[in-house]
Amino acid sequence: MIQTSKSPVIILVRPQMGENIGAAARAMLNFGLTDLRIVAPRDGWPNQAAIDMAAGALERMEARIFETLPEALADCHYVYGTTARMRDMAKPVFLPRQAIPDSRARAQEAQKTAFVFGPERAGLTNDDLSLCHAALTIPVNPEFPSINLAQAVLAVGYEWSCETESENFKAFIPPQDVQAPASHAQLENLFSRLESALDQGAFFRSEDLRPTMRRSLRNMLLRMGLSAQDVQTFHGIIKALAGVQKRGLE
Amino acid sequence: MIQTSKSPVIILVRPQMGENIGAAARAMLNFGLTDLRIVAPRDGWPNQAAIDMAAGALERMEARIFETLPEALADCHYVYGTTARMRDMAKPVFLPRQAIPDSRARAQEAQKTAFVFGPERAGLTNDDLSLCHAALTIPVNPEFPSINLAQAVLAVGYEWSCETESENFKAFIPPQDVQAPASHAQLENLFSRLESALDQGAFFRSEDLRPTMRRSLRNMLLRMGLSAQDVQTFHGIIKALAGVQKRGLE
Repeated sequence: MIQTSKSPVIILVRPQMGENIGAAARAMLNFGLTDLRIVAPRDGWPNQAAIDMAAGALERMEARIFETLPEALADCHYVYGTTARMRDMAKPVFLPRQAIPDSRARAQEAQKTAFVFGPERAGLTNDDLSLCHAALTIPVNPEFPSINLAQAVLAVGYEWSCETESENFKAFIPPQDVQAPASHAQLENLFSRLESALDQGAFFRSEDLRPTMRRSLRNMLLRMGLSAQDVQTFHGIIKALAGVQKRGLE
Repeated sequence: MIQTSKSPVIILVRPQMGENIGAAARAMLNFGLTDLRIVAPRDGWPNQAAIDMAAGALERMEARIFETLPEALADCHYVYGTTARMRDMAKPVFLPRQAIPDSRARAQEAQKTAFVFGPERAGLTNDDLSLCHAALTIPVNPEFPSINLAQAVLAVGYEWSCETESENFKAFIPPQDVQAPASHAQLENLFSRLESALDQGAFFRSEDLRPTMRRSLRNMLLRMGLSAQDVQTFHGIIKALAGVQKRGLE
């Protein structure tokens, strides 16, 4: 009944409390989400507090541990990063009520989507967010905005479940000439190659500026919505430019 | 700013764990609900576990203790009783997405509404439900339906907030991606520069292939929806790569 293959991935980045991981897992399964990925949990894994709090959910779902966020995102095509703080990101900003239909439409086109949640106090860093195509904001009371991690996950799962309820009543409109989007691993690979080529060209004016410039580049590449074919073309461009560069320097 | 006078009352009936009361309070205030009523809490009141888990919410809202559900409901006009089990009650059954607009419409008519939640394991009794005008069902996964008390409260609070959001939270929703798009002339200029740099790198494998490859490149650049700033960044990339190339060849 639950179409888990189309349901979004939930990624917890550097979660601190096992209790919150367990409560998030329980909330996910309550609403039919089963693909949980945990990046560098503070207290290691497995975690007894998480297992206790999950009330049986962790045993019934896929929960995998990753060392870094890019690794967790490798097979994902579109990523929503949860943030309470408004930054001057040139990215779409979604509420859960908007993001879930967006995610569902992408799933119809065989795109895998992920919702990423940061650690309990600090939330996602700018570097984490530079890996996300869009920002997700939960519509909380501005006078008491600090929401528990598992509760934030629940808001997404709940929206997913509400949408799933009415799925049978929605007409499916086939996409028009949509190119297969690049996976996160393909983009990451492209980015690494571009960065090292740019390094040789002294693109990064100073080590101080590098982190900001890297983030801008990443944000730009994500925003472009590159297809897998576009990524190949980009590799060709870098090879053509940097290849001559190398030959010239020999 | 939050119209608490119109917001529904949340009633926890015979809750067992202080942690759940605290988490429910925090979730309520996160979404702008402030009238919490607790009927016969198992461990008495005040409860330190509840205070700890509420993360400051209990101090900022109205939380009152009652001995019986009828006393807690005294000033309420319409009551939704949360239940996972379908009973043969001759009552309307609402999902949260339907109940919240119903509650709001009643509030416009000066009716006070209440959402009632039962104890952790057993839920509301038939006697409790006989005091409710309607049943509320949360759309959970039938294969893993047991939802945490605070998470159930959150589903109602979240719906309330989504409904309220257009009134209260509008200013906090940032505008969607509003970067100035590149003009056609800027794109044309970028394309010319890229093409001549690629020419030096033998990107175009033959003169026969050149027209097709040019068209693909142009289509790709157009599809990316580059902003004026993106175009500048692209120029920087080409300069970094082709600049070294030139110096190398000198």
